[in-house]
Amino acid sequence: MEFKINSKHFEKLLSKVFPAIPAKTPMAILQNFLFDIKDGLLTVYATDMEIAIKSHLNIASERNKQFIVPGKLLYETVRALPDTIITFSLEENSQLKLTTDRGIYNLSYFETKDYPGIPEIPIDKEISIPSDDLKRAIEKTSFAVSDEDMRPAMTGILLDFADDGLRFVATDGHRLVKYVKKTYQTDLRQQYIIPKKAIHILSKFLSDGEIKVNLTKSHASFKLSDLEFVTRLIGEKYPNYNSVIPLENENILTIKRADLISSIRRMMVFAGEDNKQVRLSIEPNALRISTENIDTSSSATENLDCDYKGDPMVIGFNVFYFNDMTTHVDSENLIFKLHSPTKACLIEPSEMSEDEEILMLLMPVRLNN
Amino acid sequence: MEFKINSKHFEKLLSKVFPAIPAKTPMAILQNFLFDIKDGLLTVYATDMEIAIKSHLNIASERNKQFIVPGKLLYETVRALPDTIITFSLEENSQLKLTTDRGIYNLSYFETKDYPGIPEIPIDKEISIPSDDLKRAIEKTSFAVSDEDMRPAMTGILLDFADDGLRFVATDGHRLVKYVKKTYQTDLRQQYIIPKKAIHILSKFLSDGEIKVNLTKSHASFKLSDLEFVTRLIGEKYPNYNSVIPLENENILTIKRADLISSIRRMMVFAGEDNKQVRLSIEPNALRISTENIDTSSSATENLDCDYKGDPMVIGFNVFYFNDMTTHVDSENLIFKLHSPTKACLIEPSEMSEDEEILMLLMPVRLNN
Repeated sequence: MEFKINSKHFEKLLSKVFPAIPAKTPMAILQNFLFDIKDGLLTVYATDMEIAIKSHLNIASERNKQFIVPGKLLYETVRALPDTIITFSLEENSQLKLTTDRGIYNLSYFETKDYPGIPEIPIDKEISIPSDDLKRAIEKTSFAVSDEDMRPAMTGILLDFADDGLRFVATDGHRLVKYVKKTYQTDLRQQYIIPKKAIHILSKFLSDGEIKVNLTKSHASFKLSDLEFVTRLIGEKYPNYNSVIPLENENILTIKRADLISSIRRMMVFAGEDNKQVRLSIEPNALRISTENIDTSSSATENLDCDYKGDPMVIGFNVFYFNDMTTHVDSENLIFKLHSPTKACLIEPSEMSEDEEILMLLMPVRLNN
Repeated sequence: MEFKINSKHFEKLLSKVFPAIPAKTPMAILQNFLFDIKDGLLTVYATDMEIAIKSHLNIASERNKQFIVPGKLLYETVRALPDTIITFSLEENSQLKLTTDRGIYNLSYFETKDYPGIPEIPIDKEISIPSDDLKRAIEKTSFAVSDEDMRPAMTGILLDFADDGLRFVATDGHRLVKYVKKTYQTDLRQQYIIPKKAIHILSKFLSDGEIKVNLTKSHASFKLSDLEFVTRLIGEKYPNYNSVIPLENENILTIKRADLISSIRRMMVFAGEDNKQVRLSIEPNALRISTENIDTSSSATENLDCDYKGDPMVIGFNVFYFNDMTTHVDSENLIFKLHSPTKACLIEPSEMSEDEEILMLLMPVRLNN
C-alpha cells in the first residue's frame, strides 16, 4: 500500500507526538510511533505508559492498516527533508520505503500486536478551558511541585473543583501555592492530581484556542485542535492543604517587588550551599535582609524601603524558595502576611484580577543564631 | 585603603578575566582574582597556569597594594548589582568590604605570596592582526583539531609563518585544514602551536580592532584594546603536514554546496553509530550518496546533480567528518579533487578571495562491502 504526505506537514505532526516517546525504557517497543490508517485518516500515536499523545491528518489511502515505526529515526529523517512530497510504501520484508524526488529511505516497520493499547477516555464530564488560562495556572504553580517520590501525591498539581472555582494547588511541604480560577463553576466536587512530567509536556502545547478536558478516576485527556494528550493521574489522596493555610496573619509587610527580587538575587550569591538562609529583620517601614556563609567568611546586608504594620520581627527563610515565590507573583508590590518567626508566612500580590486568586505560603526556617 | 568603581564597568572587566579561572583545580589559590593596584591603575588578573588573562581600569587610590579575592563570589556579586558605585575597602581580619547605596557585602581577601607569577612576554617579534582575520582563521580550522592527548602537537592550531603568508593548520590524522592568510608576510620562519582551549577562549574576545601578537618559544600573548591574553604554547614538533597533501588529484567533482549539505544531513541520520560510513558513487555528472545501518535494517540513497571530470569511482567517508568539511567551506560550489578510493581527497571552495587560500583534506574509509 502507498500514501503521500507533505514533509513539512508531517514534521509538524511528528514533532507533537514525539515527546511521548521515552528516551530510555526497558520496553523497547515504546520507542516506536504507532501508525493507524483508517478510512483515509492517519493517526500517529506514541506513549511511555504514563502519558500518550496522538495526532492525525488526512491521507489518500483505500486500505486500512496498523503498524509501528522507529520513532527517533523517522522523526529525524523527516526533519532533515526539505519541503517535498514523501511517498510511503509498505514493502516486503517489513520495510517501510520513503521516496522523495531526490532520495529513497528504507526503515523497518513492525506489526502492532505487542504494542500497548490506547487508553480511551469516556466523554461524560468534559469541561472546556482556554489555553491561556491553563497555561497561566501551570506557570503560577508548577515550580512548587515536590520532586520527592516518597510522597507521591505531592509530585503533581492538584486540580480541585471547589465552591469558589477551579483550584490549582502545588506543595512540597515547605511551600504551597494555591491558584483559583473563579470562572470555572461546575457541579463537580472532585480532586485530580496531574503528574509533573505530564504538566511539563502539556504546557508546551498550550498556545491558543480552547482545550477540552475529560477526567476519569485514573486518567485525564486534553483535546487541542489537532492533538489529544492523555495522562495517567496520581491515584493518591492529596494532603488537606486548607488546614495549613493560616487564617489570620496580622503583621502586614508591603514591599516593591522589583527591589526585593534584585536584593534576593544578591543574597543567593552569598548564602552558603549548606545554609541557604536569608534573614529578614522587619521593623516599621524598614526591612533589613542579610545572609552569611561561615565557610567562606562572607556576608551580605541590605536595607530596603517597605511599609510594615505589625510587631518587629526577625524571621528566616530558605533563600531559594523565597526567590521562587517572589518571582512567580506578578504585581508591582508584594504583600507578606506574618504571624511569628515559627509560623507560615503568606505571600500575595498587591492587585489581583477579579476572576482569579493567588496565594503562596512559605514555611520559615530556624535561624542559626 | 579605599577605592570606588562603577558596578557595570567592573562587571565588564571581570567578565573578561573570569574565563581564566578554573572551575576545578587541585590548586585552590587559582580560583581567585589577583588585584594589583599600582599608581592609580587596578589590574585584575587570573590564570589556570595554561592561560592567563589580565585587564585594567583607572581608580583613585594613593596606595599601592596586591591581594587576591575569591573569583566566583566576587564576579557573581558584581553581576547581581544594579548600576551603582561600589566602594571597596580593605578591613582588618582580611575582610574586603564592598559598600553600595543599599548594601554591604563582605568577602575574604588574602595576601599574594603563594599566587603564581604573571608570565611576562618580551616584545621583540610583535605582529599586528585585525580581529576579523584571526577570527576567520580560527573558524575555518579549529573544528579539525584533535581531541586525543596521545599526540599533543595535534591538540592545537599551528601558526606557520611561511613564504606564502601566515598559515593556520589543524589536523587529527583523519582530516586536515590549511588556511593561508597571504597578507602576513614576515621574516619569521617559525612554527607555534596554540592549545585548543586557548583558541576557544581567545575567539570570544575577537570582535573588532587590531590584535598585537607576541610569540616566544613557550608562550603567545594577544593584546586587545582592553585586555591581554597569554597562553602557554604546545612545545612539540608539528607533523610535516605538507607531505600528506597530494599534489595531483586529477578527478574533479564540482557540486552545489547547499545540496550536498542537505543530503549529508540526512545521511547522518541513517549512518549507524558504529559504522558512520557514507558511500559516494561518482560518475560523469551523477553523484549517488548512500549509507546503511545493518543494526536497524535501514538505509538511505540520494542522487545529486554534479559536474564530474574523471574516472567513475566508489569512495567511502566518515559522514560526520564529511559534514564538518562541507559546512566549513563557504563558497556556492565545492570542488572535490580525488585520486582513488584509498587516497586522500582534497576539498576546496569554488571561489576564493585573493588574499587567502583554503584547503581541506579528508582521508577515505574502507567500505564494508
